Amino acid sequence: MKCSVYIATSADGYIATTDGGVDWLHSAGDPNADMSKNPDMGFNRFIASVDCMIMGRKCMQAISSFNLTDEQWPYPETKIYVLSHSIIKPPPNLTGKVEMYSGDITELMQQLEASGHKHAYIDGGATITAFINLQLINEMIITKAPVILGKGIPLFGEINTRVNLINSEAVAFPNDFIQIKYEVHYGQ
Amino acid sequence: MKCSVYIATSADGYIATTDGGVDWLHSAGDPNADMSKNPDMGFNRFIASVDCMIMGRKCMQAISSFNLTDEQWPYPETKIYVLSHSIIKPPPNLTGKVEMYSGDITELMQQLEASGHKHAYIDGGATITAFINLQLINEMIITKAPVILGKGIPLFGEINTRVNLINSEAVAFPNDFIQIKYEVHYGQ
Repeated sequence: MKCSVYIATSADGYIATTDGGVDWLHSAGDPNADMSKNPDMGFNRFIASVDCMIMGRKCMQAISSFNLTDEQWPYPETKIYVLSHSIIKPPPNLTGKVEMYSGDITELMQQLEASGHKHAYIDGGATITAFINLQLINEMIITKAPVILGKGIPLFGEINTRVNLINSEAVAFPNDFIQIKYEVHYGQ
Repeated sequence: MKCSVYIATSADGYIATTDGGVDWLHSAGDPNADMSKNPDMGFNRFIASVDCMIMGRKCMQAISSFNLTDEQWPYPETKIYVLSHSIIKPPPNLTGKVEMYSGDITELMQQLEASGHKHAYIDGGATITAFINLQLINEMIITKAPVILGKGIPLFGEINTRVNLINSEAVAFPNDFIQIKYEVHYGQ
């Protein structure tokens, strides 16, 4: 099972302000740039390549707050699990779209693999960190908004394993966002 | 006076481990990569473009710890000021190479400009943050090592001004380091 990260950060690596805000993300970049060649910076192509998604509770609550209609829902074909020990039911506007999971991550991934899933989208800082520490993340695509926050919630929490990033790729988009792609290998 | 940042960070934006260590920087990346096209990732070209340098005390102490010979000294043509309120004399191995300064940053830059300097290299996390908050940084070149630290000393401290990053550029080198370049504009 391939596990990929696809996430936006500030130029200095934060996924949100200290209070969880992401307004800076939506206001960052040149609004007048010609993005006709890559209007979504690869998001839809990435989503089409995954068949399941695992996110944390905060990530789910952020998505829930957008109150997306069925037409706006970006993951119609994707099996979604939300990791939480504190919440057992998703919010009403995500009922039927996501499934809560409080068990062992490795077991979840084994089950998903056994049921034929091949590529998982791992989302949310704490969830990504947990997957890295289990040496499960294979690929990271990080889209850096052209803004410096100076402080906030960092993408990664405490990493307890040696992480080697290889086959680096980088592209600057006309709106001044920069997208970085790495493959992840573990150990020495 | 143009002021530029040229600094290395981890993939997640730290300039050092929590205890100030940078061993991860020297061990990161593919040691077998063919770097013949750009062996120094642009460092010498950058150094040749600056005529003065302003760094913080910690940055000076790190450079001092390298115990460079005159032949190894990378800044022979560059006027260097070290900002410190606590140290009034440089360490013996930097005597004659750097000058201590405890005054106002804006005044220092005005003096340097009045004496014909045109391009300053600003180095060290605290110094860079102070210059950003004075809206003095014009350009940032950040070379990201292909390693995740998970925690450490972030490049930027608290930013109290709106920073717009424009004209983004990015390149991935064969050794998996990624270099990002921004111009900096301030205000809305």
